[in-house]
Amino acid sequence: MTLLVIGSVAYDTIETPTAKRENILGGSAPYFSYAASYFGPVQMVGVVGEDWLPEYTEMFAKNGVDTAGLEIVKGGKTFRWSGKYRENMNDRDTLETQLNVLGNFQPKLPENYRRSQFVFLANMAPSTGLTALGQIQGADLVVADTMNLWIDTARNDLDALLKRVDGLVLNDSEAKMLTGELHITAAARKILTMGPKFVIVKKGEHGAMFISEYEMYVVPAFPTETVVDPTGAGDSFAGGMMGYLASQRGNFDGETIKNALVYGTMTASFCVEGFGFERYTEITRDDIEKRRETFRKIASF
Amino acid sequence: MTLLVIGSVAYDTIETPTAKRENILGGSAPYFSYAASYFGPVQMVGVVGEDWLPEYTEMFAKNGVDTAGLEIVKGGKTFRWSGKYRENMNDRDTLETQLNVLGNFQPKLPENYRRSQFVFLANMAPSTGLTALGQIQGADLVVADTMNLWIDTARNDLDALLKRVDGLVLNDSEAKMLTGELHITAAARKILTMGPKFVIVKKGEHGAMFISEYEMYVVPAFPTETVVDPTGAGDSFAGGMMGYLASQRGNFDGETIKNALVYGTMTASFCVEGFGFERYTEITRDDIEKRRETFRKIASF
Repeated sequence: MTLLVIGSVAYDTIETPTAKRENILGGSAPYFSYAASYFGPVQMVGVVGEDWLPEYTEMFAKNGVDTAGLEIVKGGKTFRWSGKYRENMNDRDTLETQLNVLGNFQPKLPENYRRSQFVFLANMAPSTGLTALGQIQGADLVVADTMNLWIDTARNDLDALLKRVDGLVLNDSEAKMLTGELHITAAARKILTMGPKFVIVKKGEHGAMFISEYEMYVVPAFPTETVVDPTGAGDSFAGGMMGYLASQRGNFDGETIKNALVYGTMTASFCVEGFGFERYTEITRDDIEKRRETFRKIASF
Repeated sequence: MTLLVIGSVAYDTIETPTAKRENILGGSAPYFSYAASYFGPVQMVGVVGEDWLPEYTEMFAKNGVDTAGLEIVKGGKTFRWSGKYRENMNDRDTLETQLNVLGNFQPKLPENYRRSQFVFLANMAPSTGLTALGQIQGADLVVADTMNLWIDTARNDLDALLKRVDGLVLNDSEAKMLTGELHITAAARKILTMGPKFVIVKKGEHGAMFISEYEMYVVPAFPTETVVDPTGAGDSFAGGMMGYLASQRGNFDGETIKNALVYGTMTASFCVEGFGFERYTEITRDDIEKRRETFRKIASF
């Protein structure tokens, strides 16, 4: 099935307690797309400036990511984000954000993207997500990500968006913030009353949880010993998860959902082992399968 | 195989945001013993005062817990703990601690306890644990619990105890505190250099992790929707885990260890559904097996 993602594309400057990288490829759509591409073709929609490097287009093309929907704004500059991770590698401080071309992003989907069956609205302003959704017809599954910024500053748009999606993916802290609930399960149940038919709560090093009215699934995180750069882990999780779901041709039973959570866990675990796309460019689907088998030994009973 | 536990016995006064119970049975040894008793016989060592209720002795006897090792101090008063849970039901404040007879606790093991094959040193002063261990010969498996208080105030005794045990069970925050490491896996690996051959890190609502030099297993928590009283959850986890291990006659392969973590997760999940032993007295091994099957559907892949 075709899988479409709309989201941010960024050049990131990332500092960890031991290393630093400047202006490397980042953003929700690239991380999602690369992770999903291990499972099948992906269509990526986003916006970049004239500083976009053709080598990235090539990198995506080589992995089955169609970037025809990536708008390159003449005279524009790509969105830039700069952040610094603290000693614990979980918390981070944003040092600088330059919206640049992302500030006026009005997604225009290529004609052949508009009937995609699986759609992921990666992290972006909810109004932008709504604009994109307005161009899509008859999708089988629409899932959105969100973040604290939009819960804080664009609540009405977010509420409208939630009524239009089948699923929502968000962090545990964001789930609590969105609902005012103190517990993840209670928060997820409340989100189910806001529109989505299912909620996937990302708990970082503690794994992820899927909740719908009648189903619940939990998977722990893969116990990665070397976290080099956590940037993109959440989008990579969503990419592996949606990529696997799209490859299952609409099957949505319990085993398929758990496997989707597990594959998302796998792609996220590889993502954090290097800066940006360093690890992704080294691994194949076979490496993902091997780690899945290791994970089964570690966590399945 | 015989399973012996040495630990505190308490009368707890517990306040949650919605309810309160006064002077109900608690303590590490009772919670451990009851949870373990679903899997086989348990020998319990502890100390109580004259205010000990015979109905508790009966309750334990009925469930295969031998309380011959429970010292009743004439004219003494049982250890009392009083605490209040915050809105999130995870954090709690201790309101009052009366050590009473626990203050001078010198465990004297009955002769027939001294060759127990599985031994659990539940939460108590490390020096008391060392005194107990000195009376035990040829145990197959000695596992200890510990807590922040002893890491803070009895570090030398704790270090000596760690050199005498096969396994250590502790909370994630305690693992970090004991080692100065920021990540659970790194903390657990460091503990492996202090004596124990394996470490089990309890992560509360995020599950548990087992680490030895060559093995690692993780299980999520059972997603309990109704937490009435979290008191005793950690000891109940250890009880289910050790009870199952003891029932497996020394088998210690990967599947057995994972199952032990899962059974610990099950007993803990029942424990928190009521105050004190309310839920335990309602359930049977069959209820544990049924929930295990539900958990398998939720979390095994």
